[in-house]
Amino acid sequence: MNKIEHIGIAVKNLKESNILFEKLFGTPSYKIEEVISEGVNTSFFKVGNNKIELLEATNSNSVIAKFIDKHGEGVHHIAFAVNNIEAEINRLKNEGFTVLSNVPKIGTDNKKVVFLHPKTTNNVLIELCEDIKK
Amino acid sequence: MNKIEHIGIAVKNLKESNILFEKLFGTPSYKIEEVISEGVNTSFFKVGNNKIELLEATNSNSVIAKFIDKHGEGVHHIAFAVNNIEAEINRLKNEGFTVLSNVPKIGTDNKKVVFLHPKTTNNVLIELCEDIKK
Repeated sequence: MNKIEHIGIAVKNLKESNILFEKLFGTPSYKIEEVISEGVNTSFFKVGNNKIELLEATNSNSVIAKFIDKHGEGVHHIAFAVNNIEAEINRLKNEGFTVLSNVPKIGTDNKKVVFLHPKTTNNVLIELCEDIKK
Repeated sequence: MNKIEHIGIAVKNLKESNILFEKLFGTPSYKIEEVISEGVNTSFFKVGNNKIELLEATNSNSVIAKFIDKHGEGVHHIAFAVNNIEAEINRLKNEGFTVLSNVPKIGTDNKKVVFLHPKTTNNVLIELCEDIKK
């Protein structure tokens, strides 16, 4: 794994949290993106070569709405950048991790993504992501 | 802020989690350090130029023991590297954040550290840290 690509943070109100994190980092969000299939609005901040992704639910069935109902706002997932996501899926399955799909999905920010079940990673939801070559 | 310096993850059993994260990253922990004043054993992994810090309580009064009692295992804090921690404390207090001490403390890994109260940061416990020049 190459680096922490981003940390995903579940928030109730993206507009208010954008203002908050802009103050925290001293720099504005560089991208707002809705992911209709996941029921989320996202906002991205750069911190060095890492990113913070804020996630707001757009409907009550969204994974983020369910997360906030259960846990409140806070860190939702950690994403690590990998070079070859298919090879990492195979490696981690062989190591005993529960990978939530056998093939990557297309996620936000032009990436192939897959998640590991948090029950196999100390309750931390881990995402692997690989940039899609244009 | 320069980058995500590390993500702190609260775990119940450092020995077992060290094995788990070694499999996850494909590389072993590079440092184990006990912080007696905080009641924690810590273990550090490198992922690119970021780090993951595992934290295990050494007694029931440890902040990590209390965190796990309340939330279970999982992400405990996010630490951002800064160049001038005293200037950042002042800047963030002026922006309305609740900084948990007016002067930095000496933390693990040869750093000056300070925390922001998670009630002012969407329930995310944020640490700022600055390397102590040797």
